[in-house]
Amino acid sequence: MKISQATIAEAFENLTPFVRRTPVIDVEVPGIEVPVAVKLELLQYSGSFKARGAFANLLGASVPDAGVAAASGGNHGAAVAYVAGVLGIPARIFVPEISAPAKIAKIKSYGAEVVVDGENYGAALANCQEFLAETGALSLHAYDAPATIIGQGTMAAEFETQVFDGVDTVLMAVGGGGLIGGAAAWYEGAVKLVGVETEGCPTLHNALAAGEPVQITPQGLAADSLGASQIGELMFPLAQKYVSVVTLVEDEDIRKAQEWLWRNLRIIAEPGGATAFSALLSGAYKVAGGERVGVVICGGNTDPTLFGK
Amino acid sequence: MKISQATIAEAFENLTPFVRRTPVIDVEVPGIEVPVAVKLELLQYSGSFKARGAFANLLGASVPDAGVAAASGGNHGAAVAYVAGVLGIPARIFVPEISAPAKIAKIKSYGAEVVVDGENYGAALANCQEFLAETGALSLHAYDAPATIIGQGTMAAEFETQVFDGVDTVLMAVGGGGLIGGAAAWYEGAVKLVGVETEGCPTLHNALAAGEPVQITPQGLAADSLGASQIGELMFPLAQKYVSVVTLVEDEDIRKAQEWLWRNLRIIAEPGGATAFSALLSGAYKVAGGERVGVVICGGNTDPTLFGK
Repeated sequence: MKISQATIAEAFENLTPFVRRTPVIDVEVPGIEVPVAVKLELLQYSGSFKARGAFANLLGASVPDAGVAAASGGNHGAAVAYVAGVLGIPARIFVPEISAPAKIAKIKSYGAEVVVDGENYGAALANCQEFLAETGALSLHAYDAPATIIGQGTMAAEFETQVFDGVDTVLMAVGGGGLIGGAAAWYEGAVKLVGVETEGCPTLHNALAAGEPVQITPQGLAADSLGASQIGELMFPLAQKYVSVVTLVEDEDIRKAQEWLWRNLRIIAEPGGATAFSALLSGAYKVAGGERVGVVICGGNTDPTLFGK
Repeated sequence: MKISQATIAEAFENLTPFVRRTPVIDVEVPGIEVPVAVKLELLQYSGSFKARGAFANLLGASVPDAGVAAASGGNHGAAVAYVAGVLGIPARIFVPEISAPAKIAKIKSYGAEVVVDGENYGAALANCQEFLAETGALSLHAYDAPATIIGQGTMAAEFETQVFDGVDTVLMAVGGGGLIGGAAAWYEGAVKLVGVETEGCPTLHNALAAGEPVQITPQGLAADSLGASQIGELMFPLAQKYVSVVTLVEDEDIRKAQEWLWRNLRIIAEPGGATAFSALLSGAYKVAGGERVGVVICGGNTDPTLFGK
């Protein structure tokens, strides 16, 4: 399956009855001249954009009796579990021990079986691959599969229909690169596409610097959602072509962004969900006078009672 | 100023540059056939619909040097403080001791002076009236003033533009009655309008039963936002004419609704904000097969770290 504007447009149509058209609101951000178009993708089913990729993988797929399996830091797992539940497919989700308890609980609540084992995403992936080899279950990769990237790309297709005056620039967080990979394929350079990563999870930043995907050791506040150990192979050429810049932020910037989003918008974003916005608030990404910026709040799977702690 | 569809339409136009067009999302609710149109009015500036009423009072008003003053259980106070801040007007807000600390902090953050004194809303109102008499400051009533009701009515006018297939029924929480009074004037019976109150704050329920506004002693979980001691005199005839039914819910229903909204939508509503939705989830309001329901989540000014406690 080719990752392109055409396949994303087709997926956008197919997914429409199944995914939520997440709202966009205009927000005044201190120091930025033009209101920022904020896409509340954290209101997506399962609490993050990942439901899009999971639906794109499973709608119309022929699924073996063993069902589906996925390895995930949490949000992809929740999404696969949610989508499998909606479509009546058995699901087994492999998550590393680093995953937030709230995410594990959520995955279970959708009726999936959860295997918590391994230090990081890589270890969970190895467990998942062993299971796939043994049972023949259908594999859903968290980011490095065409259907996953195409599904996430529908977020960009949808965003474009919602901001009638257009945007010059769109910021989104990067983990394994599924979301920004899909957005890169959708926009094809029509907007300035900015990736935002934390200092502890610079998968795309380091890959672009090296000219190829390189291993990192994910760490820090957003590692449970952005902590891929390598950027996706499939999206990397798209990023080289269409991602204008990758901005790095610090964990403290994210904490401040989470706090700001709550105080000013009554939105609880998880660290990875607040990462892109933090680049605006901290000035890590410098907005030009008159630049109309869009930003994606991509996930909300956190524990509100731990907020600010 | 007459409270009517025409004056609300005019206010809707005037307020457009100042208030947020809050998003509406379709939500599947267990046991309800047709998706529910949920208006996320908690994303309004200042964290509740009350900013609408405050702007309607202050836009174009001639304000004395002493500025504005308001008595409020919290959300109206936050709204007046926010709006005064935007328009560059000095504000003094009188709140009862029952007010949530998060709301008091929010009012202060907008630059207003806050006077915390008195057991309930009535006591805070008395303090405010004394201040008004002494200084000649402009009074903003939390619900029983034409401009306040007209401003809140713009929520209904806006909602109508957002649900293209229309709704049969709209549910909203009732405290002093400003919001539902404005909605009643806007809809004029075009939809079934349902008020939702808690057992501890049945201002409109008791007034309709008695045929006139009667005193209550507000208590329970939602008292800090719905705890008016009497329904507004101005809205009461509108309610008699256009509010189809007032449904009562228990505090436990609200707790469950708050929990459900977080788990399923990643939304943190305050108790009063979750009250209308709780009538759907608990079955206190029985939805007919095929009935298309709209519901307003009207406020989010709570402390997320206390969530579920």
